[in-house]
Amino acid sequence: MSLIVTGSIGIDTIHTPTGQAPDVLGGSAIYFAAAASFHGPVRLVGAVGDDFPDELEKPFHHFDIDLAGLEKRQGSKTFRWTGKYLENMNDRETLSVDLNVLAEDLPPVPEAFKNSEYLFLANTHPGGQLALLEQFPAAKLTVADTMDLWIETEPDLLKTLLGKIDGLVLNDSEAHLLTGETNIVKAGEAVLALGPKFVVIKKGEHGAFLLHADGAVALPAYPAKDVIDPTGAGDTFGGGMMGYLAASGGDTSLSSLKKAMAAGTVVASYNIESFSLGKLMEIGKSDLELRHSEFAAMLDVSE
Amino acid sequence: MSLIVTGSIGIDTIHTPTGQAPDVLGGSAIYFAAAASFHGPVRLVGAVGDDFPDELEKPFHHFDIDLAGLEKRQGSKTFRWTGKYLENMNDRETLSVDLNVLAEDLPPVPEAFKNSEYLFLANTHPGGQLALLEQFPAAKLTVADTMDLWIETEPDLLKTLLGKIDGLVLNDSEAHLLTGETNIVKAGEAVLALGPKFVVIKKGEHGAFLLHADGAVALPAYPAKDVIDPTGAGDTFGGGMMGYLAASGGDTSLSSLKKAMAAGTVVASYNIESFSLGKLMEIGKSDLELRHSEFAAMLDVSE
Repeated sequence: MSLIVTGSIGIDTIHTPTGQAPDVLGGSAIYFAAAASFHGPVRLVGAVGDDFPDELEKPFHHFDIDLAGLEKRQGSKTFRWTGKYLENMNDRETLSVDLNVLAEDLPPVPEAFKNSEYLFLANTHPGGQLALLEQFPAAKLTVADTMDLWIETEPDLLKTLLGKIDGLVLNDSEAHLLTGETNIVKAGEAVLALGPKFVVIKKGEHGAFLLHADGAVALPAYPAKDVIDPTGAGDTFGGGMMGYLAASGGDTSLSSLKKAMAAGTVVASYNIESFSLGKLMEIGKSDLELRHSEFAAMLDVSE
Repeated sequence: MSLIVTGSIGIDTIHTPTGQAPDVLGGSAIYFAAAASFHGPVRLVGAVGDDFPDELEKPFHHFDIDLAGLEKRQGSKTFRWTGKYLENMNDRETLSVDLNVLAEDLPPVPEAFKNSEYLFLANTHPGGQLALLEQFPAAKLTVADTMDLWIETEPDLLKTLLGKIDGLVLNDSEAHLLTGETNIVKAGEAVLALGPKFVVIKKGEHGAFLLHADGAVALPAYPAKDVIDPTGAGDTFGGGMMGYLAASGGDTSLSSLKKAMAAGTVVASYNIESFSLGKLMEIGKSDLELRHSEFAAMLDVSE
């Protein structure tokens, strides 16, 4: 499979009610890539600064990630985020954010990546997402993420983007902001009216919702007792989902999409069991398959 | 099956963002009984006042409900509740409440009901629930509901009750209040430590969670687009669940309980499609079976 992801790579400092992790690897693209890589190789395009420490590079090499598009930019600093989770482990506050290299130009897409068939446009300015889209003429399946900032500040560009992609992934609050609909089915319908063939609305601990021409699917999250750090849950969900779809040859039938959501749910459930990518570095594909089976068995309510 | 329910019967006036329904039949016991009656006959114990209008009695006779324990008390007034749902159709405000007959003694349990095997103690003072429990020596399966008021004001009596029942049904915010745990799995474990064999934590539009010695089950709600009135969703969920369990002979295995939750989910999804019991009076058991099949198919994520 030729799955490519672009997005942030950063150094996070995370505080939770039970612990903290200073200066650990983070960023949407690396969480996504790690999760997707269980299904096959992932191409990564992103930049860090010259301050990026060697010891944080270990995960890049642990997972099946093609690093030809990873730039260590001299004279720039790495994106940094410091966040604090509240007692409920769902709500969080950003204590500080330094965009640094994220505020500069994206690194160039290597020539060897331009034949990528499966494209995930992680959350960034929709103008940047549109520019990226044009660099992948062979794309068979394009899925984008977005956020409240772009919905509010760049609605027209975002709508242009929505007319050109196959799928959109976003949070429930963002879906409400984008469509004005509080009912999740109506919000989904309003997104599909803007162009995408499917939309996945993420609800954190409450699971995820899919709307597609052939139907609607709601799935719960995997019941997680020992939540250490929710950072990257949405990105690993997206990575697991997209990795599954790429490995399936881009099958976007309702049945394939919901299994892809289940794959995303399962890898995200492992991700939150540790800070940073710690847990994902401990597990293998068989662990994911086993938990996928358990998840499917839990959801078997047929008579 | 000999399933009995006690609880409120009232006259509701409901305001939603899209409409209103003045002076319609409501109350936890009638929603519960109607939903449970699709699985078999239900015995109802409850009281209304002498102001209770004949035209609101129609649902009592439509469903398979034994009314021997329904008292129309002379000189008393019927419980009344007026509520307003906010734009999101989940949060609501109570505009007025008149306990009336609910503040008086419960009607006596008819002798013919005392051999009931399946007992649902709808939300009321835990002292009242304990007193009721003693009147059903043949009970094989006892499930109770409760609320924040009793958790805060009668914690000791509530804990005594929890030591004597098989299952507890409550909302997520109530589970947090009762146990101090924000994580739903940990909250469930803390409830089981107080005595019940299982606990079902209701999450409204986000579904429901079951914890049992043999495992945990999270189910989503059925994706509902046309929500007219959420009143009674939790009570019909409980009724569908308990009706299913009674019809199964009181099988409280994990597998039976999760199918019972699915039955509750499905009947609640119909209930919210109309004000009061309108929709439940239009459908039959085959509608529930069809939607149960659709729900099970939606949740099939097996490889």
